Amino acid sequence: MTEQPGCPGFRFSGIAAGIKKNGNQDLGLIVSETTAGVAGVFTRNIVQAACVQLNRARIQSGECRAVVVNSGNANCCTGDEGMQDAIRTAAIMAERLAVPEEHILVASTGVIGQRLPVAKIETAAPLLMDSLAPSGIHEFARAILTTDLKTKITSTRIPVAGRPVTITGVAKGSGMIRPDMATMLCFVCSDVGASPAELQSLLVRATEKSFNRISVDGDTSTNDMILLLANGISGARLEKPDQLERFQQALDAVLTDLAKQVVRDGEGATKLVEISVAGAADDAAARAIADTVAHSNLVKTAFFGEDANWGRIIAAVGRARVPVDPDRISICFDAVQLVKNGRWCGSEAEAEATRILKKPEFAVFIDLQAGAGKASVLTCDFSVDYVKINANYRS
Amino acid sequence: MTEQPGCPGFRFSGIAAGIKKNGNQDLGLIVSETTAGVAGVFTRNIVQAACVQLNRARIQSGECRAVVVNSGNANCCTGDEGMQDAIRTAAIMAERLAVPEEHILVASTGVIGQRLPVAKIETAAPLLMDSLAPSGIHEFARAILTTDLKTKITSTRIPVAGRPVTITGVAKGSGMIRPDMATMLCFVCSDVGASPAELQSLLVRATEKSFNRISVDGDTSTNDMILLLANGISGARLEKPDQLERFQQALDAVLTDLAKQVVRDGEGATKLVEISVAGAADDAAARAIADTVAHSNLVKTAFFGEDANWGRIIAAVGRARVPVDPDRISICFDAVQLVKNGRWCGSEAEAEATRILKKPEFAVFIDLQAGAGKASVLTCDFSVDYVKINANYRS
Repeated sequence: MTEQPGCPGFRFSGIAAGIKKNGNQDLGLIVSETTAGVAGVFTRNIVQAACVQLNRARIQSGECRAVVVNSGNANCCTGDEGMQDAIRTAAIMAERLAVPEEHILVASTGVIGQRLPVAKIETAAPLLMDSLAPSGIHEFARAILTTDLKTKITSTRIPVAGRPVTITGVAKGSGMIRPDMATMLCFVCSDVGASPAELQSLLVRATEKSFNRISVDGDTSTNDMILLLANGISGARLEKPDQLERFQQALDAVLTDLAKQVVRDGEGATKLVEISVAGAADDAAARAIADTVAHSNLVKTAFFGEDANWGRIIAAVGRARVPVDPDRISICFDAVQLVKNGRWCGSEAEAEATRILKKPEFAVFIDLQAGAGKASVLTCDFSVDYVKINANYRS
Repeated sequence: MTEQPGCPGFRFSGIAAGIKKNGNQDLGLIVSETTAGVAGVFTRNIVQAACVQLNRARIQSGECRAVVVNSGNANCCTGDEGMQDAIRTAAIMAERLAVPEEHILVASTGVIGQRLPVAKIETAAPLLMDSLAPSGIHEFARAILTTDLKTKITSTRIPVAGRPVTITGVAKGSGMIRPDMATMLCFVCSDVGASPAELQSLLVRATEKSFNRISVDGDTSTNDMILLLANGISGARLEKPDQLERFQQALDAVLTDLAKQVVRDGEGATKLVEISVAGAADDAAARAIADTVAHSNLVKTAFFGEDANWGRIIAAVGRARVPVDPDRISICFDAVQLVKNGRWCGSEAEAEATRILKKPEFAVFIDLQAGAGKASVLTCDFSVDYVKINANYRS
């Protein structure tokens, strides 16, 4: 996965428009040179921001020219005025780009319940346009951040029908993911050509293997969205099954890389941990257990404390509402077995496991020895800084 | 609710047996002068400590003479040896008390997966017996604590059939409650007479109104239990419906008071918050929403930060997997309305709500305006100290 500056046929910009109190960059724009095909995946939270509602409707056309994103204000729980603000934001960009306003999508992230300062966006629009550049992706990536510490960009290139095709993704997100996901935004640009239906299918499948492995269906914030834009400028079009399959794999890799970047940049996180469950009755049972362990505050604080506290892991397994036989559970930290058939492997194994926990990235393998079901979920540790960040978020 | 020293016909003791590394009290005993009727409520976690398995079987007889409780070791995931250790612990007490060992119940709380040091318990048994006293309840209450900062005792007296009857409860528990409940233990003694079936019914109903309002079905630790012992020494027996009803109310009050003490002593907690949901389609929907809000890390860290961040509350409502109309949601902090029909009530209301959040105890009322369903759940805030406590628990 090489990091490229942007994607052929797309320009990017990011500036400070005064939406954030601290003066940081807070307004970003992606523009495709030509009308792009578009697909989207959105939050399943019942409370949905204006941008989510607007984009859901607008992507039905399958066409998109630009995406304008603000951070610092979620434009959520803002009623009809909020929807008018979202529409107006798109219209400002549409006017300056001389494209239909229905071809502009909008994304917002930040504090809920306050009116979006559209006047500030209007004032900033000329600078936002002037800043557009094929190499502007880093500025764009910075402008969409909230509590994130790092920008998240990844890019890859694959051959399609003998031509090089680029897939470049930018993401934002730094919450505890679940149970209380901070907004996750992800924008993927490609110069491939594909029908909106194909793009939607590709995006849904890639999301399932990446961002849905760090979150859980339904447990998303009010503003989460992933958009995929494909403008076809490469001249290569996805037509044959093997081309689609190859593109799928590349898109999976881009989204997985971004998802890992999100977890690694979790609020206050110091460790990236993969919770891998095998030997369950079926994949759904494995997933339920992996989720319960991955989101246990007690397990995550133990990771932070570099404590191989397998008792908390096994207790989380036991409350996942899935039948398990405690006496068959085995637990490894990377290649160190700490629990065999529900019993502790002793102080020597624990000393070895504790060394694994000192690593910045490791895996926890849980084998239930009851079937062929398996699943894995990425999580991070849970630190003192998480509480500090979230206690003082709005102040 | 007056705090009495113990309960007629019961003696208590608590000593340090060397189970805890820090030398604190870690072994407690409750003994009834006569064989008491007994009822129990146990964890629904699939992984269950030896004491839970043993007591489940033993209370089937309906008879109990004593309860021995250790802290510092959960005796969970310890296999057949662990069960033998629990049985042996009971036998040690039975021998000294000269009662059938089946009439001794056992409870443990502490680290999972290590063998219970029964030799230390055996060595400490003479001192534990010698220390038994009707006024020993404070020592008992101290000996069952783990991360708790305070002992939790409450007592009440009511007339039954013209005689004074005492109900005295002791509890232990200080976790975040759910989603990762630290072990909650509760022992209630009464000198009333009642059949085991009546006691069980009384205990289940009181638990539903108290401890189940701070936790959630199924989401309990491996060792949770509530035991109710009634030895009849008052000479009053629960026979008539109005007597049972009166006793039920008193028992409800005892358990509710203890449950509040547990939340108030939550790990690192600085605030006690009641999340009250009304206007839901039914009580179950209200309960699902109250639980989701009450257990949201983001909501709880905002409480810690004294931030009236209603956006996090409304986002939690939206992901409770219950249909709601966001545009009808109203939210009050005590008597201050901050959200009306899904919209913010303005900066003046927010300033007032922020003052409410500075109180050590307050309520959050969420009205969905969609039906008659209601529910309330007690929670605490989520502080930096919670992470510190749990990152370093075993070290």
